[in-house]
Amino acid sequence: MRMTDLIAKKRDGGELSTEEIRFAVEEYVRGKIADYQMSAMCMAILFRGMTDRETLDLTMAMMHSGDVIDLSAIKGIKADKHSTGGVGDKTSLILCPMVAACGLRIAKMSGRGLGHTGGTLDKLESFSGYNISIGEKRFIDNVNNIGLSLIGQTADIVPADKKLYALRDVTATVPSIPLIVSSIMSKKLASGADVIVLDVKCGDGAFMKTEKQAQELARGLTRIGRLAGKKCAAVITDMEQPLGHAVGNALEVKEAISVLRGETKGDLLELCLTLGGCMLTEAGFAANMEAARKMLQEAIDSGAALDKLAQLVGAQDGDAQAVYDTSRLPLAPVQLEVPSEVSGYLSHIECEKVGLISMHLGGGRATKEDKIDLSVGLVLNKKVGDHVEIGESLGTIHAQTMESAQQAAQLLRDCCRILDWPVERPKLIKAIIR
Amino acid sequence: MRMTDLIAKKRDGGELSTEEIRFAVEEYVRGKIADYQMSAMCMAILFRGMTDRETLDLTMAMMHSGDVIDLSAIKGIKADKHSTGGVGDKTSLILCPMVAACGLRIAKMSGRGLGHTGGTLDKLESFSGYNISIGEKRFIDNVNNIGLSLIGQTADIVPADKKLYALRDVTATVPSIPLIVSSIMSKKLASGADVIVLDVKCGDGAFMKTEKQAQELARGLTRIGRLAGKKCAAVITDMEQPLGHAVGNALEVKEAISVLRGETKGDLLELCLTLGGCMLTEAGFAANMEAARKMLQEAIDSGAALDKLAQLVGAQDGDAQAVYDTSRLPLAPVQLEVPSEVSGYLSHIECEKVGLISMHLGGGRATKEDKIDLSVGLVLNKKVGDHVEIGESLGTIHAQTMESAQQAAQLLRDCCRILDWPVERPKLIKAIIR
Repeated sequence: MRMTDLIAKKRDGGELSTEEIRFAVEEYVRGKIADYQMSAMCMAILFRGMTDRETLDLTMAMMHSGDVIDLSAIKGIKADKHSTGGVGDKTSLILCPMVAACGLRIAKMSGRGLGHTGGTLDKLESFSGYNISIGEKRFIDNVNNIGLSLIGQTADIVPADKKLYALRDVTATVPSIPLIVSSIMSKKLASGADVIVLDVKCGDGAFMKTEKQAQELARGLTRIGRLAGKKCAAVITDMEQPLGHAVGNALEVKEAISVLRGETKGDLLELCLTLGGCMLTEAGFAANMEAARKMLQEAIDSGAALDKLAQLVGAQDGDAQAVYDTSRLPLAPVQLEVPSEVSGYLSHIECEKVGLISMHLGGGRATKEDKIDLSVGLVLNKKVGDHVEIGESLGTIHAQTMESAQQAAQLLRDCCRILDWPVERPKLIKAIIR
Repeated sequence: MRMTDLIAKKRDGGELSTEEIRFAVEEYVRGKIADYQMSAMCMAILFRGMTDRETLDLTMAMMHSGDVIDLSAIKGIKADKHSTGGVGDKTSLILCPMVAACGLRIAKMSGRGLGHTGGTLDKLESFSGYNISIGEKRFIDNVNNIGLSLIGQTADIVPADKKLYALRDVTATVPSIPLIVSSIMSKKLASGADVIVLDVKCGDGAFMKTEKQAQELARGLTRIGRLAGKKCAAVITDMEQPLGHAVGNALEVKEAISVLRGETKGDLLELCLTLGGCMLTEAGFAANMEAARKMLQEAIDSGAALDKLAQLVGAQDGDAQAVYDTSRLPLAPVQLEVPSEVSGYLSHIECEKVGLISMHLGGGRATKEDKIDLSVGLVLNKKVGDHVEIGESLGTIHAQTMESAQQAAQLLRDCCRILDWPVERPKLIKAIIR
């Protein structure tokens, strides 16, 4: 088998066989197929697409390029969530305790990730002492005992994706549905959950700019998930503004706790109820979304979800008390309000730029070696559709110095477009795809 | 400027600017752009195409990646021919002396090339003593004195094409019209001729399988040639069977001499009259094709074309006498006739396979270091449309040993499809594109 022939086949619109796809992935990971051949193949796939059979084969071949997590020692149904990535997305911090409180099992291994803020693991480290390296035995035991555990990756999950994604990133071959689907689903499948719910972001701040693209991706993801024998659903959600109000690690933890306490409603709670609802219905824990949402709301109202977060933190050597007393969480030395210079209606908040503010304050990671400042970030006071008076605060900057806070304040003002006439609030949940 | 952005632009159907194309070519040749980016770019170009402006810019950027030959010291109009490559193509051996006899200047530098037989230079080396390394001064002087010279490449012509073609070859990105056009025309433009005539082969034995593809390529080539300020024409010719009868170096020289003597008519002469006619009309030496063909036919009838070949060989230290006495050319020790095993009409001769017979006999070069056996090859006795009696010779094998001759004979029989009913003779000249 020659890679050149396989590229030509795909270039001409042919369907690659299971063996051909396996050959390409295995030999690429082994270094026997050159990057310049794989990038040409990715571009051909971008133009020609892949059938579901091809995408499934690619996903499975990538999954088998590394370790596959065995969660069979965990009793009950294991659920997992994936988000295509957004600014201010602290959903996992709320969703995981909430569904665990309803009896679903969450056994999640994550990488650190790069971005505007840290990943979920970084955020959890806002709890003093939280240990992401408790070892596999405690990981399994914790899930069996309290229903959830979130730790750092111990295994070498899908090395093919690491290599392939780095290549796609510099060869303009990222935006291909079958390539995105296989990248996401190979990692989700390797992680061993039975139920997979996907949060596909859509809009200016997301990778999928239009609802049509997001629908296509969501359908691809759920189809492949089901073909691989998993329960699978996707929710298409708006990313025209940051999710919730806080952007920054400890700040997001505080917002998550506030939602779990039932104190904060709005888009963030709505998203968690929808994603959680999909999980519970897919798992067979609820007959329909209405019943599922009721279960989840009860977990909040009863305090069970908040307690579950405290159990998670405590079981991983973290300061569980901070769940009930957030003054124990990191706090930046400087807080600066950002008064609006005009009156009107907030029509747009530039997600990407808001993320960069957090990054510049020290809350994100540009390279794997960067250390994160957990205390810094910003909290939006206004969301799209809100009325703003001149002098009223658009948000609060949390920074290490007044100088960096003032720079960030100006950037935040630049992110907010304010119009004279009323603006409709964007609908967060655009569609549920099963 | 980032190559990733340029790939994305082309991927999305955008038009690359002159600066962007120049950047991509220059930095690629300098090794600053990776192969994996260039191969993704080539695949994007393959799908999206290029405007004439882009193709011209690419051609010029490639041309300027190396030496550009200055033929200004040669008086008169310089003409050049390029063929997209066929089996048994000894056209240059006939065409160059023929048009030189009519007053056009031929100053041709060629590489050795790989293939079923050698290139034109190898064929000329069938004349004992022929020197392809006479230096630039003698090269120029010879053209000024006798009208033509054919030597080996002294300059580093279009290194971008060497690098790019090697990459395209292993990434399935060869069959893209703008990439083929820029590859061919960058080299032709760097070679300094004023008139460029292109022989675009079409059919089973050629790279362009259909007449539609060949037309598209021919139009692309002539458009870019004219945009670059050259006189340019293309002839689309049939490659469903080898051109003429001989395949093999000295054998092809003998056939060429026979045409120049006026002894052999048929497809080969017709092609030379058409290509030469295009050259003379484009150069303004003849008012129309009819007048041009008449001039060329007179050059044959008068013996001037044959004498021109002898002058060429003599001026480059070769055995010019062999032009008049072909027994002085290399002759293989074994000649074997290949009698047909059936009667009928010859309907098809597999070009590619006939070429491989010559190659296996030792007449071609698989790697640059291979030495060529100038004497071996085969001479077809029948062409498509001819009637064949059982026992009648399909052709003659010229080999070093009886064993290799017998193997070749069987292969030749396998190349010939013979049917019970009459078959139309294929039309050699399919179109002239100006």
